[in-house]
Parts: sequence; structure tokens; C-alpha cells
Amino acid sequence: MSPHSTRAGPETGGTGRYPAEGHLKEPESRPRRPTAVSQSDIHETILHPGTVRINVQGAFIVDDELVTPQSDDYEHDPRDIRLPNHTAVVSHIAVDIGGSLAKLVYFSRESNAISIGGRLNFLKFETDKIDTCIEFMRKLQADHQQLNGSKPEELCVMATGGGAFKYYDRIREALGVEVIREDEMECLIIGLDFFITEIPMEVFTYSEAEPMSFIPFPPQPPSIYPYLLVNIGSGVSMIKVSGPRRYERIGGTSLGGGTLWGLLSLLTGARNFDDMLKLAEKGDNSTVDLLVGDIYGTDYNKIGLKSTHIASSFGKVYKLKRAAEQEAEDGCNSDYKHHAAEEHIEGSSEIPHESAKQFRPEDISRSLLYAVSNNIGQIAYLHAEKHNLAHIYFGGSFIGGHSQTMNTLSYAIRFWSKGTKQAYFLRHEGYLGAVGAFLKRQPRNWGRRNSFDTT
Amino acid sequence: MSPHSTRAGPETGGTGRYPAEGHLKEPESRPRRPTAVSQSDIHETILHPGTVRINVQGAFIVDDELVTPQSDDYEHDPRDIRLPNHTAVVSHIAVDIGGSLAKLVYFSRESNAISIGGRLNFLKFETDKIDTCIEFMRKLQADHQQLNGSKPEELCVMATGGGAFKYYDRIREALGVEVIREDEMECLIIGLDFFITEIPMEVFTYSEAEPMSFIPFPPQPPSIYPYLLVNIGSGVSMIKVSGPRRYERIGGTSLGGGTLWGLLSLLTGARNFDDMLKLAEKGDNSTVDLLVGDIYGTDYNKIGLKSTHIASSFGKVYKLKRAAEQEAEDGCNSDYKHHAAEEHIEGSSEIPHESAKQFRPEDISRSLLYAVSNNIGQIAYLHAEKHNLAHIYFGGSFIGGHSQTMNTLSYAIRFWSKGTKQAYFLRHEGYLGAVGAFLKRQPRNWGRRNSFDTT
Repeated sequence: MSPHSTRAGPETGGTGRYPAEGHLKEPESRPRRPTAVSQSDIHETILHPGTVRINVQGAFIVDDELVTPQSDDYEHDPRDIRLPNHTAVVSHIAVDIGGSLAKLVYFSRESNAISIGGRLNFLKFETDKIDTCIEFMRKLQADHQQLNGSKPEELCVMATGGGAFKYYDRIREALGVEVIREDEMECLIIGLDFFITEIPMEVFTYSEAEPMSFIPFPPQPPSIYPYLLVNIGSGVSMIKVSGPRRYERIGGTSLGGGTLWGLLSLLTGARNFDDMLKLAEKGDNSTVDLLVGDIYGTDYNKIGLKSTHIASSFGKVYKLKRAAEQEAEDGCNSDYKHHAAEEHIEGSSEIPHESAKQFRPEDISRSLLYAVSNNIGQIAYLHAEKHNLAHIYFGGSFIGGHSQTMNTLSYAIRFWSKGTKQAYFLRHEGYLGAVGAFLKRQPRNWGRRNSFDTT
Repeated sequence: MSPHSTRAGPETGGTGRYPAEGHLKEPESRPRRPTAVSQSDIHETILHPGTVRINVQGAFIVDDELVTPQSDDYEHDPRDIRLPNHTAVVSHIAVDIGGSLAKLVYFSRESNAISIGGRLNFLKFETDKIDTCIEFMRKLQADHQQLNGSKPEELCVMATGGGAFKYYDRIREALGVEVIREDEMECLIIGLDFFITEIPMEVFTYSEAEPMSFIPFPPQPPSIYPYLLVNIGSGVSMIKVSGPRRYERIGGTSLGGGTLWGLLSLLTGARNFDDMLKLAEKGDNSTVDLLVGDIYGTDYNKIGLKSTHIASSFGKVYKLKRAAEQEAEDGCNSDYKHHAAEEHIEGSSEIPHESAKQFRPEDISRSLLYAVSNNIGQIAYLHAEKHNLAHIYFGGSFIGGHSQTMNTLSYAIRFWSKGTKQAYFLRHEGYLGAVGAFLKRQPRNWGRRNSFDTT
């Protein structure tokens, strides 16, 4: 899938045409376009690390340069966000520690001496390697100290996700800094509101004909509400958002990324998510899924189900496996057959692995990817229907910019809603919570469109 | 699970207290309580096989006797329905051929010479062994001929399910009889209406405290509507029923019995459904599922999720498997490690089976049973909510009277609906379609409660 598109919608960002009502009334409101480092900014930042303003004026996504060295320990998302006009010192970093992945967001100055401003960096670690993530934060802390002359404790860590609680002590002790924990759901929607409202070329719709059709900025930020956020990590949370900071978790499902990754690691031998997705791309689910046509021999016209509709995910496996076993046993004498049958009543763990070979890992991967994505799409649609929400945003690391996944989710929303609801995706879909936690350290009325209010 | 209960609701069946309005007006209405074979009945049956009336007066479920010999080829449900007052010849049998199982319903006279009446027999075959099922029907045909002196072509086969179309020619040619195909959804709801309205001790609610609490007959048949039928076979269909013969398929999911059976046959080595369920009973899903407590280290109180709540089904597998592989590799030199990693980019089918051994088949079975049942429960609730249906009946062979499955489905409905909706189960849950097809051959106003109208 190309991360670029020639079909970007009309770009209206950066004009500041729609200041929110409260903007001019706010007494502590500051000039919004500093173009060079101000000494007083730096001082204030050091004294009050929580009150730094991130200047997002002219922010855009950088696709092709990498300033952070690559490593086996983490994955640096190549889509940094350039903040060409932000010059103040940022003395906080943010981390969102989920069940499978820890996502880190931090600000860095441009290494290029002639550029002012800086960029937001996006990194992913496996949660099991949390110590690597902590070590990376320690390195950021040292850099911060060297660059700004501040004391190590002046860097502050914003943390969210379940791991913000589970690893709270460990992070605090390792870095010797304040760790401020923020609610996971709140950070997700703050992050999403930021991406929707402030970052051009971030939100897009997906279809096979138009894989990445970017959405123009909404006419004014409040018009983005209400919406449903479906956040797909290891598990899935569905959050109804009715306005800034007005949200409610209305549902979720345990069938999420963790289910796909867990089952495929058992069934296919693929060792990482990318390999699983590559397998799925080459697969043919009709060898393992039971289709309407397999049952009816034709369409089931009366209720509008096509013969290619999946009636049962993995519905062919049991019978095909049984048939293969039968065939194998027919070559043996009946004593052996009886013995083998007895052995299996308790469910041994030796045989299945032999017979699993009759199915291609590619086909298994595709079937399970379809099953999980379709299921999330259907449940999302039903929750959106119940709460009368027409816009459904999909976030979380499960999606990973993978076209088949987005296509399946999009299709499910179109199919079930008969075209009345729309699925939206984001290029930084995995970082909503981390960006939200990062942005929690903002004063009022920051940003070109004033979409945030941290009170 | 005990098939009996001491908590049967008040039994009002057989009194005919609530005749439907049309009953007395119907000119062709016949006496409803023949107590002995009438010669004219037999003749009419032979001439018009479709117009036989099944006398269900005093019908009840027989638990302990088996008249059909057991066989490896089929499973005879021990819960026959005794029809002590039905004496006419029944010259049709009914079969519901689904994606995994073919369900057969036929009437037989009591072998006991002193009993009059007969019983409905319920048999299951695997759809892959459809020829065994056809052979069984041929045997019924021969018996029918011998008993009643009719010609073979006078037995008629009522067929429904996808296989009624797929195997239409094969059945017709093998038996040389008329095969009448009936719509699957319609048969399901005719069968369900029959069980709800006519058979005592058939419908029950399930909870751990009261595993089988039978439901008294509704005050009058129309009061059973509207309801949602969730039929779980290989796949899942959800059907909204607003009145007799008024139904609409409003949804479904491909994650059904076929998914559970298919994945467990690959992952556990269990060779049949019963073994899979036995495994699940002994399992501990917390070794493979990622719980809220695993992520947070505690409850996530803010949104009311307990630490034991499943955040991600199979969410622990990927990381545990990776850790085990890492450990194994650490014992090898780095050349080997590199080689092994390369081998797996394409997803080999050899390795996974080795490492799957680190998980107990029992735990995998329980996790997947929970995942599939919970998911069906949630989608059922959401559809019921959307269409304002308070009563949810679960049918289909997936349930198989298995207490864990019913408990999970019941719990999901209670959890999501906050107690406003109720899950109902049936002792003949797998035979709704087959019984419905059987009953399609009925004149108007048969049965003690006149719940059916075949026009």
C-alpha cells in the first residue's frame, strides 16, 4: 500500500480560519506564532514543564526522512510530524503502554542546523521489552539535559495505558522523574481530536478503488462530534465521543489484535505481525472458510447472501482434517486405528500439529484476518447504530496501515450500514493514546484551531 | 449437566385452554383427539401424505429409552418426544442439512405392543457422511412400506438447510421419492414456535445457580412474539420473528460452531465436538487470554472492568511463544538463529506445531469456547437492542446442551443488557429446522394450542 495518495482532499489547514469562541477571551493566551527560540520561553519551560505550548502552526507529516537510528528493539514510525514553528523547549515525553505494545512520542529539534522548529517522533516497543523502552527514555532524558542544561528530574513522563499503572514504579525509579498518569480513554480521544483537527493528510477513507482518500478539515472542530472511536490493540475498545472530553466506553470485544497474533503464531509459524500480514495477502480463505456456496451449491437469494459470503470462518477445517485422518487410518489395521482413537479422547498435543500441515499458512492467515476484522466491523456498526453515530474512526496498532484490514473494516461498515456510516482511518492510528498523553501538558487554547482544552 | 430439573415451571400444556380464534371457524377442522388408529386416516394419509395431522395431545420428552440402535454413523438424540395419542400413519420424514450436520426427524410407532401412539425421533449425521444419512432414510422407507403396505414412492422427504439444495438430486435419485424443499429460516421458526408452544419442559433459562429453569407455557401463543432467534450451527444466523411466519434475517456472524471446531481440531488434537467440550471444562483460560489485570495490574475501575475481564482472547499467546522461542534460540549460536529467522519470514508450517506444545489443549479450548460464545452473545444483544426484542432464543447444534456454552451466552446477554434481556435455551436446540420442515406437512389448526398455520 502506498502511504501517499494523489487524491488528497482540499487542504484547508493552517489558516486558523475558525478560532474557537474562547480564544480571544483567554487572558493567559499567548502569541501563537513564535518563530524563534525565546529565552523567557525556555526559562518558563524549565520552571513549569507542564505549561509548554506546542506550536503546531504549519504542521505536516514527514514521510521519508528518519532521524532516529533504527534498532531491533523498537520501531520508529517513519511518519514523523514536522512542527516547523515550534521552538520552545519541550520537557516532557509521553508513553502509552498497552497489552502488547508501548508507544512513545517525543519532541526533537531538527538536526539540520538551518531549520528551526522540530518534530514529533513516534516509536513502538513491545511491552514485554519495557526495559528497552525505559532505557530509551533515559537516553532522551540525558539528551534533554545536555541540550537544555536542565537537571534530569526536570524531564517529565506522561504515561497512559494499562502499563502506566503496572510499570509506574519501575519507570519512576529508573528515571528518577515524575510520572504523570493519564486516563487511557481520555488520552485516546484527545489524540484523535488532535489528528482530526490539526494534522493535514492524516485522516482518510479506504476503498479498493480509492485506497487513501484524505478528508479535508471539518468546517469547524465541533462539527466532528459525535463519533465512535474503535481502538484495536490486543483487545478492542469502542468509545462514544460527544464533544471535547465528553466520552463514554460503550463496548468492546476481546477478539482483537492479540487474538489474531496469538492464533497465527500458533498456526502458521510466522513470528511477527508483518509476516502474518504478508501471509494473509497471499492467501485464499475459501480453502478453510465455509462459504454460502459450499452449503447451498449456489447463492441463498431469498436473504441476499452471495455464494461467496463466508458462512463459517474455518468451517471447512474440521471436516477436511477428519477426512485426511480417516484416509491415513484406512491404511492401518483396525487395532492401530482403535488405539489412535483412544489416545485422542483427552486431546493430545502431538497429533494436531502434523495434520495442520494440510492447510496453507497463507490461507489460515487470510481467513483469520477476515474473521477478526469483519467481526470488529460488525460490532462497531451495531454500537454506532445504537448510539446514532455516523462517523466511525478506527485506531490502534492492529490496523498498521494494512490495506486488507482497512478494506475489510470499511467493507463491513458499508455492508451493515447500507452505506449510511463511514469508516475513517489515520496514518498515526497506533499513537492516539500516546499523543493524547503528550498533549495533556498544554495550556488552554493552544494550536491553530483551538481544538483542545485540558481543563 | 443434568437433563432433568426439579424446577419445572407450572405445566399448563394439554388443556387446550387457549384455542386460537380461527379454531372453531375452520370448516375442515377435524376431531383433535383420536385415541386409536382410524382406517380412514390411514387411507387418507396414503393418498395425501401431506395432510396427516400429528396429534401432540399429551406430548412429552422421553429421556431414558432408546429405540433406535446406536451406530458410529449417526447420533440418536436420547430426548425423543413421545406422542402418546398420535395413531395415524405418518408418511413423511424431514431432514435439515447444514454445513456440518444433517438432522433427521421421523415418527415411529411404539415398539411396545401395549402402547398406542408413537414418538418423534431425532438423529444427527455429519453432512460429509450424507450417504449414510440417505441410506438411513432408505431404511425408514423400507420399514414404512412393510408396516403400512404403501408403495415406496409414497414416503415423502421434507428437506431444508443448504444441503436440501446441494443434495436434492442425490436424495431424490437414491430414494425414488418426492423431495420437498422448504426455506431454512421459515423451518427454523416453525420448529421453534412448536417447541415453545407445544412441548412441556422444553424451553429453559440457564444460570450457574439454576442450571435448567423450565419456562411455563406462555399465557397464549401470540404473546411469545416478538423474539430473536440466534441459530448457531457452523455459522450463526439471527432472525427477528414478529409473528407466526413473520420473520426476517437481521444479521449473523461467521464466527460460529465451525470456527470453534475447526480451530480446536487444529490446535488441540481433539477429534470430535464432545472431546473439545470436555477439554474446555477442564481448562483455565487465564493462561492464554490477556486479562484486564494482566495489563493494569488491577481492575480498570473507571470504566467498571474487573481484573478478571478478558481484554484479549489469546492475547498472551504471542508473547509467551516468542519468549519460549527466544529462550530456545539463546542456546544456539547466532548463525543458526539468523538462519531460523530467515526461514520464518514466509511462515513455515513446521515450527508452530512444536511451540504450540507450551499451551495446554484444555486452556486453548476454554479460551476459544469463551471467545466464540461471548462474541455471539454480544452480537445477539446488539441486534436485540436495535430491534427492541427482549427474548432471545438460542438454537443450533453448537450449544449441544453444554453448560459452559449456555452459561457464557446467558452471562453475555445479562451483562450487556444489564438484565433487561433474557436468553432462552431448548433441549432440542439442534432440531428446530428439521422439526419445522416436518411440521410443514400439516393441515390447519393441528396441535393442542393451534400455534401453527401452514398456509
